[in-house]
Amino acid sequence: MTSLDELFRLLSRGQVYDLGVPLKAGIPHGPAHSPYLYSLIKKHGQVVYRDGVSSATDLFSMGTHVGTHIDALGHVSKGGCLHGQIEADAVQSFSGGLARCGVHELSPIIGRGVLLDLPRLLGCDILDADYGIGPDQLEQVYLKQSVVPLPGDTVLIRTGWMQHWPDHERFHANRCPGIVVEGAHWLGDNGARYVGSDTYAFEKVPASGLPVHVAMLVERGIPIMEMLDLEALARDGIYTFLFVAIPLKIVGGTGSPIRPIAIATGP
Amino acid sequence: MTSLDELFRLLSRGQVYDLGVPLKAGIPHGPAHSPYLYSLIKKHGQVVYRDGVSSATDLFSMGTHVGTHIDALGHVSKGGCLHGQIEADAVQSFSGGLARCGVHELSPIIGRGVLLDLPRLLGCDILDADYGIGPDQLEQVYLKQSVVPLPGDTVLIRTGWMQHWPDHERFHANRCPGIVVEGAHWLGDNGARYVGSDTYAFEKVPASGLPVHVAMLVERGIPIMEMLDLEALARDGIYTFLFVAIPLKIVGGTGSPIRPIAIATGP
Amino acid sequence: MTSLDELFRLLSRGQVYDLGVPLKAGIPHGPAHSPYLYSLIKKHGQVVYRDGVSSATDLFSMGTHVGTHIDALGHVSKGGCLHGQIEADAVQSFSGGLARCGVHELSPIIGRGVLLDLPRLLGCDILDADYGIGPDQLEQVYLKQSVVPLPGDTVLIRTGWMQHWPDHERFHANRCPGIVVEGAHWLGDNGARYVGSDTYAFEKVPASGLPVHVAMLVERGIPIMEMLDLEALARDGIYTFLFVAIPLKIVGGTGSPIRPIAIATGP
Amino acid sequence: MTSLDELFRLLSRGQVYDLGVPLKAGIPHGPAHSPYLYSLIKKHGQVVYRDGVSSATDLFSMGTHVGTHIDALGHVSKGGCLHGQIEADAVQSFSGGLARCGVHELSPIIGRGVLLDLPRLLGCDILDADYGIGPDQLEQVYLKQSVVPLPGDTVLIRTGWMQHWPDHERFHANRCPGIVVEGAHWLGDNGARYVGSDTYAFEKVPASGLPVHVAMLVERGIPIMEMLDLEALARDGIYTFLFVAIPLKIVGGTGSPIRPIAIATGP
Repeated sequence: MTSLDELFRLLSRGQVYDLGVPLKAGIPHGPAHSPYLYSLIKKHGQVVYRDGVSSATDLFSMGTHVGTHIDALGHVSKGGCLHGQIEADAVQSFSGGLARCGVHELSPIIGRGVLLDLPRLLGCDILDADYGIGPDQLEQVYLKQSVVPLPGDTVLIRTGWMQHWPDHERFHANRCPGIVVEGAHWLGDNGARYVGSDTYAFEKVPASGLPVHVAMLVERGIPIMEMLDLEALARDGIYTFLFVAIPLKIVGGTGSPIRPIAIATGP
Repeated sequence: MTSLDELFRLLSRGQVYDLGVPLKAGIPHGPAHSPYLYSLIKKHGQVVYRDGVSSATDLFSMGTHVGTHIDALGHVSKGGCLHGQIEADAVQSFSGGLARCGVHELSPIIGRGVLLDLPRLLGCDILDADYGIGPDQLEQVYLKQSVVPLPGDTVLIRTGWMQHWPDHERFHANRCPGIVVEGAHWLGDNGARYVGSDTYAFEKVPASGLPVHVAMLVERGIPIMEMLDLEALARDGIYTFLFVAIPLKIVGGTGSPIRPIAIATGP
Repeated sequence: MTSLDELFRLLSRGQVYDLGVPLKAGIPHGPAHSPYLYSLIKKHGQVVYRDGVSSATDLFSMGTHVGTHIDALGHVSKGGCLHGQIEADAVQSFSGGLARCGVHELSPIIGRGVLLDLPRLLGCDILDADYGIGPDQLEQVYLKQSVVPLPGDTVLIRTGWMQHWPDHERFHANRCPGIVVEGAHWLGDNGARYVGSDTYAFEKVPASGLPVHVAMLVERGIPIMEMLDLEALARDGIYTFLFVAIPLKIVGGTGSPIRPIAIATGP
Repeated sequence: MTSLDELFRLLSRGQVYDLGVPLKAGIPHGPAHSPYLYSLIKKHGQVVYRDGVSSATDLFSMGTHVGTHIDALGHVSKGGCLHGQIEADAVQSFSGGLARCGVHELSPIIGRGVLLDLPRLLGCDILDADYGIGPDQLEQVYLKQSVVPLPGDTVLIRTGWMQHWPDHERFHANRCPGIVVEGAHWLGDNGARYVGSDTYAFEKVPASGLPVHVAMLVERGIPIMEMLDLEALARDGIYTFLFVAIPLKIVGGTGSPIRPIAIATGP
C-alpha cells in the first residue's frame, strides 16, 4: 500500500466538520468593514442557447474581514511597521494593497488543529462578554482535555460566541470575550502556528491598541482566524483533528474569507 | 500511534502544489462575468490607536466564475430544469441566487486527484484551440500515465492553456481546447466525481448548447472546476495526489472562487 | 432686474418632474449588466462620538446601464470603431474603460426637451412589444402635439413601457417597442441632440446589430437615455419643457446613471 | 415669447461651470468609506453582433460619500435621533438603508448659488488647515463680494482645499479648514437652504462630535455637499449663479454622488 493509498484510507474514515459560516446578504460585519453583497447577474431562461440550455451567473462583494476569515500578517501595524519590521508606507497602496505581508503570502493550512473549549471548562454556555482568557485558563483547558500543545498547532479558542450569529447587534457588540495579551504570548510560546476563535476579534474587546493582534500578527507572525463555527466540534467533544483552511490568494489582501474544515479520524 | 498521528506523519512528508491563480485587478474574466475589483479601504497610519497601532482593511468584488473556481450544479439548466429535475424558476431569485443546487450545497472536496496531461501524451506544449478530447485520448492518457480510474476521483485535464494566463485576449479567446461530450460521459462512466481543467470552459469551445456542462452539471451532478494552474504538477510528473478544494459557502451561488491544492506524498 | 434674477423668477414658477427611477436592490437590469447592490456599512449607534453623535455610511455597486441612465458615445462600436472613427482597441482597457468617447466627455444636458407621447397618438396605454416607430409616426405625433422640432432638442419617446417597472420579467422581456433605424435618422435629421425613451433599449427589440444604437451613438454622436419615467409628464400633457440631466463624470465609463428632470414653466 | 422660450434665451447666454470631480479608481476617500472601484465588464470586440457591431459595458462600486457628493439628512444622528426627532433604530436596516431621511427624499436642487471665496478675502491661496470660519468671516466675505444672503440660497464655501486633490494624503489629512458651529448657525439664520464646500468635511476638522453636521443635518435639515471643485468659479469671480445638483435617488442612501453645476448668466 502506497503512502497515498494509506492517506486515503485514513481520510475515508474521517468525519468532516465545516467551520465556516454561510455567506449571504445581511450577515454581521464590523462597522469598519464592507458588507457582503450578492446578486444573480443573469437568471436561467433570460438567455437561452441551443436545445433549451441556459446558465445563471452572479457576483458578490465583501470586505476581507467579513464572515469566517483569516487576517494576513499585514492587517495590523505598530509604529508604522508590519511584521518583520517592514515599513507599511513602503509597501501599501490603495489599488495594490500590501505588497508584503499580504494574504497572498499565506500558505494553505493543513496540520493538527486543537479545540480549546472554554465554556466546557467553566461550565457555561457562552463566556461573559468581559471574560479574558490568560495563561491559567489555557493551561487548565489543555489539562482538562488531556491535550498537549505541539509545535505547529492551529489552536482554536471556543467562547460560545457563535451562538449569537447571525444576530448583528449581539454578535458585533462592542464587547466580546477572548484572549488577553498574556494568553497570546503563552500560545505562541507553546508552539501555536495559527490561532482562531468564534468571535469577531479573537482577543478580548475592548482592548485599547489591539494588543493581541500586535502580539500575534506583528511580533510573532501568527495569523489569526475569526468567526469560526466551533459548535459542532464542541458538541462532539473533538479536541484534536486535521485542520484545513485555504485562504484565497487575494494579492495584497489584508485578509481573506475562508471555509475551514476539521477532520476527525476517531481513535 | 493513533490514526490522526499517522495522518500527520503522511502529510508531513507530502509536497503541496498550489493550483489557484492569484486574484488581482486585471486578471482575465469572461465577458458575461463581473470582473475582479480590489482596493484598500483604509491604509496603515490613517487611523492610529494607542501605542502607534494601526490597521488596514480592504474589499473585493467579483463574479463567481472569475479566476480559479468551481461551478455549482445549478450554474446550467436545460429545458428550464437544474440537476435533479428541479425547476429553475421555482428556486432562483436575483437577491437569493439558487435556493437549490447552489454552491453552498457543495461539500469540501478531499480525495484522490488525477492529472491527465494531454500535451505530454501528444508531445506538444499547448493543445491546439480546436482540439477536442474524447474517450480515445482519455484511455490513452490513463494508459500512458499508468493510472487506473477509480470511483470518486477528481479528474483534472491539462491542456497547457494556463500558459496564456494572464493574457486576457489569448486566454479568453472565443476558442479553447477541451473535453467533448463523449469524453465527458466517459469520465462520468469511469468514476469521476469532480472534474476540472486549466481553461475557462473545461469543454471544447465553441460548443453550441454547452453539451459538456449539461452532461456533467445537469445530467450527472458532477461539479466542474476551471482555470486551475496545472503546470507545476505536470512539470514534476505528479499524476495522482491528494486533492483538496473548499468552495466558499456562498448561499445561492452559481459558483465560487477556490484555491485548490494537490498534495503529493511520493512513493 | 438682472438676467439671473429673471432666470430665478421664471424657474420659481416652474414645476419639476422627476424622470429617474428609484435605485434599490432588485430593480430590473439586463442580463449583460451588473445589478444594483446596496448596503449600509455602518448603522447609527455602532460608533458613537461625543454628545451621543453617530453617523451611518453605505455603499452601492452597479452597472452603468442599470436604472435610468445615459449611454456614452463609446458604448457601441461598428467594425471596431467608435464615433469619430476612433479605433476601440486603441482606447479601451479593463481598468480604465474608454479613454475616448467615455461618459466623462458628456456635458451636463440643459435645454429644451420634447415628449413624444406615442400611446396617446395611438389611443392605447402601452405600445405593443413589436411596435416600431418610424418617420411617419414621428411626424404625426409632432403634428398632433403641435410641436415643431428644433435643433438641439432632447427628444423623449414615450411607449408606456415604464408601466411594467419594476417587474423584471415584463420590463426586461426580450422584446420591447421603440424607434426603428429610419426613425432614428429622422430624429437626427430634425435636430435632435439627445434622445431617450422609457424602455431599456430605446430602439425596437429584437434588432439584429443594434441599428439604432449604431445610427445614434456611432454615426451621429447622439447620446441615448433609457428607462426614463415619462408617465407623469404624459399624464399632465407636458410636451415641451426645460430638460436637465447631469451624467456622473465616470472616467472611461460606457454610461452613467442619471436622474433627469423636466421643468414645465406653464404658458 | 413664452416663459419657456425666455428661459432658453437666458440659459443659452449662460456659462456652465462643472463643480464635480472626475470619478476614477484611486481618487481620495475617507477611511470610513468604501473606495471607488471601476472596470469594464466587456470590451468592444469580445462579443460581435451582425455587421461587426459590438458593445462595451462596465460597473462601478463606491461609498456614497466618495468624490463630490451630498449628505442626506439621515447621515448623522444625535442621541439616537435623525432630523425631525425620528428614531434611527426604527428606520435603519443594513439592506434597506434609511427608510426616512435617506437621500431619496432630497429633491433636485435648482436655485441661486452663492460662492463665498475665503482665500480671496484673506489674500491667500488655501486656508490653513486649522482655520475656522465663523460669523465674522462670513459677514466680511458677503460684504466684500457685494452679495446679500437670500432665503433658499445654496451657499458654497471655498477654502482652496481642492488644490490638494487628488493627493490622498494631503486632501484627507486628519485636519481641514471649514465652518465652525457658530458659522453654521449664522448660515442657517441667514437663509441658507443647502450648503457645501471644497473639503471632505465642510466643517473644520478635527471637531469632536461633528457639531456642524449636527447643526445642519440634524437640527436644521440643511443638506451638506462636500468636495466641490470651486476653483474655476473663483478664478472668474463668479459669486452668484444658478446652481443645479441632482442627487441619485438611492433609496435609503446616507448620501449620493453628485456632479453639481453652476450657470453664470453674466450681467
